[in-house]
Amino acid sequence: MNAAINGFDATPEGELMVGGLPLRRLAARVGQTPFYAIDRERVRQRVAQARAALPPGVRLHYAVKANPMPALVGFIRPLVDGLDVASAGEMAVALDAGADPSHVSFAGPGKRDAELQQAVAAGVLVNLESAREVAVLAEASQRLGLPARVAVRVNPDFELRGAGMRMGGGAKPFGVDAEAVPQLLRDIGHAGLAFEGFHVYAGSQNLKGALIAQALRESWAMVQRLAADVPAPIRHVNLGGGWGIPYFPNEQALDLEPVTAALAGIEAERQRDWPGARLALELGRYLVGEAGVYVARVTDRKESRGQVFLVTDGGLHHHLAASGNFGQVIRRNYPLALGRQVNPTQTETVSVVGPLCTPLDVLGERVDLAPAHEGDLVVVFQSGAYGASASPQAFLGHPPCAEVLV
Amino acid sequence: MNAAINGFDATPEGELMVGGLPLRRLAARVGQTPFYAIDRERVRQRVAQARAALPPGVRLHYAVKANPMPALVGFIRPLVDGLDVASAGEMAVALDAGADPSHVSFAGPGKRDAELQQAVAAGVLVNLESAREVAVLAEASQRLGLPARVAVRVNPDFELRGAGMRMGGGAKPFGVDAEAVPQLLRDIGHAGLAFEGFHVYAGSQNLKGALIAQALRESWAMVQRLAADVPAPIRHVNLGGGWGIPYFPNEQALDLEPVTAALAGIEAERQRDWPGARLALELGRYLVGEAGVYVARVTDRKESRGQVFLVTDGGLHHHLAASGNFGQVIRRNYPLALGRQVNPTQTETVSVVGPLCTPLDVLGERVDLAPAHEGDLVVVFQSGAYGASASPQAFLGHPPCAEVLV
Repeated sequence: MNAAINGFDATPEGELMVGGLPLRRLAARVGQTPFYAIDRERVRQRVAQARAALPPGVRLHYAVKANPMPALVGFIRPLVDGLDVASAGEMAVALDAGADPSHVSFAGPGKRDAELQQAVAAGVLVNLESAREVAVLAEASQRLGLPARVAVRVNPDFELRGAGMRMGGGAKPFGVDAEAVPQLLRDIGHAGLAFEGFHVYAGSQNLKGALIAQALRESWAMVQRLAADVPAPIRHVNLGGGWGIPYFPNEQALDLEPVTAALAGIEAERQRDWPGARLALELGRYLVGEAGVYVARVTDRKESRGQVFLVTDGGLHHHLAASGNFGQVIRRNYPLALGRQVNPTQTETVSVVGPLCTPLDVLGERVDLAPAHEGDLVVVFQSGAYGASASPQAFLGHPPCAEVLV
Repeated sequence: MNAAINGFDATPEGELMVGGLPLRRLAARVGQTPFYAIDRERVRQRVAQARAALPPGVRLHYAVKANPMPALVGFIRPLVDGLDVASAGEMAVALDAGADPSHVSFAGPGKRDAELQQAVAAGVLVNLESAREVAVLAEASQRLGLPARVAVRVNPDFELRGAGMRMGGGAKPFGVDAEAVPQLLRDIGHAGLAFEGFHVYAGSQNLKGALIAQALRESWAMVQRLAADVPAPIRHVNLGGGWGIPYFPNEQALDLEPVTAALAGIEAERQRDWPGARLALELGRYLVGEAGVYVARVTDRKESRGQVFLVTDGGLHHHLAASGNFGQVIRRNYPLALGRQVNPTQTETVSVVGPLCTPLDVLGERVDLAPAHEGDLVVVFQSGAYGASASPQAFLGHPPCAEVLV
């Protein structure tokens, strides 16, 4: 094996290896480009790494939204302690993957009545996000003869700093404001729902371990205050996730030491105060994001007024985030390489674009790659999360991408 | 009829009318929310308006990419003189809609070999974007025994100012640099392809008529220069489109007078110099954008720390552009209204959000609507173009939206 790139191996000749296969052989096996490939061994290693950072007894959940590819969810399900879903559609993926409903939880603002009924029928835990959901669940419980299992998703009275996206603190559509939780807990008791605990999710894509640790401590303290009003013993506390991965040269991998230290203290208090309860963390992007690549083929090599464009068959319709058009304020290149030569001694500066008739369709702007020609494969790293499912695949009528787990 | 809103009528009680139906009845007819509804009468009127701005004899094409909904393409096809497509997928929609292949043209960087072969077999006009395409088309022509019909898409040596997106001028992946066109024309002649003319597309979403007029004049002058080297008489010149529609309060509808004046001059020269040729303009967004609404239902009305959130069953997974996450640098609200009261005397300030677990899922931030409750319909105007097909519908596993033509 040659020098690695972004955590993947390469052949002695410098070709990227994914799932033990040289990339061109993998592409031939897939039978089409573009495709996403998720390396199962890297997922397994990353799950082990996350587990090692958690004190014994703290549960590790996978947030299906990061990548709902059925084969991946089926692979990761036995490696983790639970699956978190954000819709009835994701719930179906989790159940199809063989998840035990007692370890599936469902969060999301604006759950439709039909979704809430499906959740009760499935027996999954519903993270309540509004008083309205209590009434709908009570009715569904009565109709189905099953008590709805619920936790309260709390909109904290603090903000997680350093997160790529903040999802708690201030006025938010997510969860129930901390100050309104005592009344909601009473409503849950009156409605006869099966209360199990709390859910707090402060933000996502955070690369500062100390800030995640601080949010965990504050979340835990808030949950302890809210526990004064619970209608039944607490069995489950989901303290969120938001562990980030580095995408850009100025970003560094998350330092988990402060997170581990914070969780050790919290878990010790949990054992002392609530021996019948379990803590859980939910991670999505962190578990799968670095394990995946997006692979497109160079359709045309064009020079225009001194610039080289590699026009590929892949683009923003499959990988909106890499094009920089999914909520990013400033477009930055995801890490890219030419598949047959990932650590070139000689490079040229090229722009990698897609087949769409729009200047938004850029995968790499002025990146240094091995000199490329038509038929070559271009690889976008850090593509295991928020890829195919987060992209407008029908845009401009091009074929959908393939997805493989290798 | 009551006061109109964004060009739509309302009932005397203030309910939005689309396609002659009050919105709640239309929603009941569709049978689900969210949905897009395109008003065919407004499309017809807009096509007539565009035609009135074109000198007699100038052809009007519809750019399918703006909205490839099959029923809409079928409706608009007999109203226009041709359809422009950006992929083999869109070509199939155009042909299914009954388009005459002689009035279909196919543009796009990075056309795959298979797509080029499909285009030759279909008999549509291929807008060449690179020297590579000449070779692939020559081979396909020979294999199929049909001469490939081609025009040259030129990357101009000027830029269209004022466009929302620039697609010509400077180094670009689109088209062939003007200075490289003479050589390409010789290659086309040697390869025996059926040369028909030129295509120039300077940019999109332009609201300045004077700037569009200037780009038309410059495009025409460039085409006249390039005509010195054509291998066959020019039959077709597509001068692009890019006519914008106003989305935000500070934007004004396009003034077409300068465009009409410029085209009159160009068309007079065309008649004098190339009596066997025809000019064409291709319009997408301008023909259908204002004719469409996106309709979502309020699932939950939540108050959080003094702010009201209307959580709806629709969001960025169906309407990425309205969420402000499709290449926009600054998020601005599309025009919104509550369906049952579009011109309220009393309003409240609310944020309209979707069901996704992400702070990106916002349809309206602090907008003034009639006071709303659960079950109400929220309408996003200016949604007839770049809606369903330009959105990540699979994101988070929610159901796809419906689309109707009424």
